[in-house]
Amino acid sequence: MSYYISKTIETTFDEAIRRVTETLKGVGFGLISTIDIREKLKEKLDVDFKKYVILGACNPAFAYKALQLEDKIGVLLPCNVIVQEVGDGKIEVAAVDPMESMQAVKNKQLGTMAGEVSEKLSKAINDL
Amino acid sequence: MSYYISKTIETTFDEAIRRVTETLKGVGFGLISTIDIREKLKEKLDVDFKKYVILGACNPAFAYKALQLEDKIGVLLPCNVIVQEVGDGKIEVAAVDPMESMQAVKNKQLGTMAGEVSEKLSKAINDL
Repeated sequence: MSYYISKTIETTFDEAIRRVTETLKGVGFGLISTIDIREKLKEKLDVDFKKYVILGACNPAFAYKALQLEDKIGVLLPCNVIVQEVGDGKIEVAAVDPMESMQAVKNKQLGTMAGEVSEKLSKAINDL
Repeated sequence: MSYYISKTIETTFDEAIRRVTETLKGVGFGLISTIDIREKLKEKLDVDFKKYVILGACNPAFAYKALQLEDKIGVLLPCNVIVQEVGDGKIEVAAVDPMESMQAVKNKQLGTMAGEVSEKLSKAINDL
């Protein structure tokens, strides 16, 4: 098992963000944060990095239930989805697999939920 | 081992955020995202949740090195630090332990770096 679920598509960077926003919405996940890594690295270290953003995806009902089961789970939320340029007009989109990132959380009910979320994120990535 | 490093302090919620921002800065970490969970849950589900924020902490040099070692590591970045009300005028601050959240990432050099980051975040939490 890998810690992420990914797919490489031939499109523009902005179109990839638009598409993944839509497929995430299709499985009930909205975006609650966006971090532009390229911009941050330029600003902080003055280095030129490829286009790379971290989108924070969240299903409010799942998040609410998870926080009630495990009040420190916020350290592993939201579920990140990255979009990065990989060259030759290709863009790779990868979502965290919560089954893997949450394996150190010893909470059975949360584990079941992580499995459900993992399936939804896989569908969003496959639907790209 | 737990997936987080935490400390409970007696102070106000805003003062706890101010303090952890300062102790994180002291170990070279800046904040690159803030998610107000209470506000989001009110907006999306119309439920009243306790004060709870997720701060995204990042050391640009570590992040840059990590991204070069492992280009999908963004799904586990930034390092989240949560601040939550726990009652009786107490606030709990908890940082993710990257040694645990990144255990599914099979990359030895990244594992060494996760250990260094874990020490820095532990210091920031202990210094509260």
